[in-house]
Amino acid sequence: MPNRLDDFQSYREKMNARILEIDHLGIKRFFNLDTKAYEEAALDTKTKELLGLVASMVLRCNDCIDYHIQTCVDAGWKDEELYDAFNVALVVGGSIVIPHMRHAVESLDLYRKKVS
Amino acid sequence: MPNRLDDFQSYREKMNARILEIDHLGIKRFFNLDTKAYEEAALDTKTKELLGLVASMVLRCNDCIDYHIQTCVDAGWKDEELYDAFNVALVVGGSIVIPHMRHAVESLDLYRKKVS
Amino acid sequence: MPNRLDDFQSYREKMNARILEIDHLGIKRFFNLDTKAYEEAALDTKTKELLGLVASMVLRCNDCIDYHIQTCVDAGWKDEELYDAFNVALVVGGSIVIPHMRHAVESLDLYRKKVS
Amino acid sequence: MPNRLDDFQSYREKMNARILEIDHLGIKRFFNLDTKAYEEAALDTKTKELLGLVASMVLRCNDCIDYHIQTCVDAGWKDEELYDAFNVALVVGGSIVIPHMRHAVESLDLYRKKVS
Amino acid sequence: MPNRLDDFQSYREKMNARILEIDHLGIKRFFNLDTKAYEEAALDTKTKELLGLVASMVLRCNDCIDYHIQTCVDAGWKDEELYDAFNVALVVGGSIVIPHMRHAVESLDLYRKKVS
Amino acid sequence: MPNRLDDFQSYREKMNARILEIDHLGIKRFFNLDTKAYEEAALDTKTKELLGLVASMVLRCNDCIDYHIQTCVDAGWKDEELYDAFNVALVVGGSIVIPHMRHAVESLDLYRKKVS
Repeated sequence: MPNRLDDFQSYREKMNARILEIDHLGIKRFFNLDTKAYEEAALDTKTKELLGLVASMVLRCNDCIDYHIQTCVDAGWKDEELYDAFNVALVVGGSIVIPHMRHAVESLDLYRKKVS
Repeated sequence: MPNRLDDFQSYREKMNARILEIDHLGIKRFFNLDTKAYEEAALDTKTKELLGLVASMVLRCNDCIDYHIQTCVDAGWKDEELYDAFNVALVVGGSIVIPHMRHAVESLDLYRKKVS
Repeated sequence: MPNRLDDFQSYREKMNARILEIDHLGIKRFFNLDTKAYEEAALDTKTKELLGLVASMVLRCNDCIDYHIQTCVDAGWKDEELYDAFNVALVVGGSIVIPHMRHAVESLDLYRKKVS
Repeated sequence: MPNRLDDFQSYREKMNARILEIDHLGIKRFFNLDTKAYEEAALDTKTKELLGLVASMVLRCNDCIDYHIQTCVDAGWKDEELYDAFNVALVVGGSIVIPHMRHAVESLDLYRKKVS
Repeated sequence: MPNRLDDFQSYREKMNARILEIDHLGIKRFFNLDTKAYEEAALDTKTKELLGLVASMVLRCNDCIDYHIQTCVDAGWKDEELYDAFNVALVVGGSIVIPHMRHAVESLDLYRKKVS
Repeated sequence: MPNRLDDFQSYREKMNARILEIDHLGIKRFFNLDTKAYEEAALDTKTKELLGLVASMVLRCNDCIDYHIQTCVDAGWKDEELYDAFNVALVVGGSIVIPHMRHAVESLDLYRKKVS
C-alpha cells in the first residue's frame, strides 16, 4: 500500500526526469553538484546527510526533509540520533520549525515501517 | 592585537550579560536550552556543532557563523572537513550564501591564527 | 462535517503526542517554552497571540497561521482587528505573503462558522 | 478536465474577492500596488513578469510561481528562456529551490497544454 | 554625543529623501502605505508598532528593529513589555534571532538614555 | 578616494582568491556555475543580471545587491529601469526590503559617480 513517501518519491523521479529532458547545461550541472555534495570526501556521507537534513529543517522545506530523512536512515543514523538533530534544528529555527518537525517525525516513522 | 572575532566575542559577552540582567524567565530558559542543544546526548558535541554551523550558514547569520566556527575548531574539526561542510551549505543555500562563506573562511583563518 | 481546520487540529494533536513519546528532554522543554511564551506576563495573552499571528504570517507558515487564528479568536480579537493585523503583515512581508493571507482569511471564516 | 492550475485559479479568485469584501483600505491599496508593479513603465511588463517569477522561486512560494508562470507565458516568454531564468533562481537560491523548480516545470507544462 | 541610533536615523532620513527624489509612483505609494499601516485604525498605533517590532525580529532586520524600538518606546511600551515581546520573537524565530535580540536590547538601552 | 563599493570589491576579490586556494572541487564548480548562470544563453546577460539583482533584493543580501548593481550598470540598464526593478522587489518582498533599497540606491549613485 503506497504512503505519502512513495507518492513523493514517484513525483520526484518523474519531474527530475522531465527536468533532465529540458537539457539546460547549468541546471544539469547543478543537479550533479547537488548529488556530489553528499558523497564521501573530507566528511563522510553519513555526516553530510545529517547536515542536509538539519539545513532542510531550518529552511522549512518538507520535500527536502523527506528526501534527507530517507538518506539519513539509509546512511545508518538511529532514531535517537535523528531526534537529537531535530532538537538542534528546533532550537536554531524556533517554533516556526514545529510543523516541519511533525512532518519529519511522521516521515521517519513511515520510512522505518517501510524498510523494516 | 584584537581582531574582529575578539570584538564580536566581547560584544556578545557584554550583551548576553545584559540580557540575563533583564531577568525574563522565558528568555533565560531559551538561552539555557540553546546551550544544552549542543551538549553530548545521542549525538556528540562535535557533530552537533557542525550542524549548528551549517544551519547558521544557510540561514545567513554572520554572528552565528563566527560563534560556531570557533566551537567547531575547539571541537576538533579540521579545515578540510569544515570546507566540506561549507560546500553542503553552499549547495543547499545557493549563491546568496557566498558572502557568508567569504566571512566564514576569513573567521576560520583568524581563529586558527589565534589558537595556534 | 469536518473542515480543514479540524483535520489540521487532529493531525497536530496526533503528531504532538507522538513527539512527546520520543522523550527528548530538549524537545519537551522547547514545547513547554513555546506554550509559556503566550501566557500572561508583562504582556497579556491576547496581545501575544496577535504577535504570534503576525510573526507566522511574515514567516509564511500556514499551519502556524491556522493555530494562531484560532487562539486569536478565542482571545477575543474581532475580525476588523485581525484584518488590520493582516495588513501590517502584508506591508512588512510583501506580496509573497498574499497566498498566506488568502489562507488566513479562509481560516478565520471557517473558525467563526465553527464557534458561532 | 480541470487541472491543479485551474483549481489554484478558482481558489485565488474566490479568496481575492473575499479579501476585497473585507474593505480594508490598506489591503486594497496593497493589492492595487501589486497589480501596478507589473504594468509597463520604465521596464516592460514582459521583463517585470520574469522578475516576479524569479523572486517567487528564490522565496520558494508555489502559488506565486504558478501565478507568474502563467503571466510569463502570456507575456510571450518561450520555454527555453524560462528554463534559463529557472537556472538563475536555482543558482541564487540553491538546492532548497529544487522542489519548487519541479513544481514550476510541471506548471509550465500544464499551462502550455491548456493554452495550446 | 551621537550614538549608532542617531547615525542610523540620519542615514535613513538622507536616503529616504533621495528615494523620494527618484519620483517613482509605485515606490512613493509603497512608502505611504508603510506609514499608514501603523496609524490608528481597528487596532491602535501602540499595538501595531509592537507587531512591527516582532515581525522585524523574526525576519532578522536590525535597521527595522531600530526603527520599531524607537516607535514602540514613543508609543508608550515599557521595558518589561518589550522584553516579553522579544521572548515571543525568540521562541518563534529560534536562536538565529539571538544576535538581533542583543542588538534590540542595546538599541532599547540607547534610546531610553537619549529620551530620558 | 575609495568608497564602500571599492572596499567591498577588494574584500570580495581577496576572499574569493582565498576560497579558490582551498581547492575544494565542489566549491570551485559552484563558483563556476554561478559565473556561467549570467552568461548569454536563451536569455541575454543584461536580463539575467536584472534577475540576479531582484533576487538579491528580496533575499535581502547587501553584498549581492552591490555586486549586481555594478553588473547591471555595466550591462547597460538605465537608472529609471533599475528603479522600476527596485519597485518590483519592494512589492514582492515588503517593507523589510526598504533598508536594502536604501543601500541599493546609494550603491547605484556611488557607482554612477565612479564610472562617469
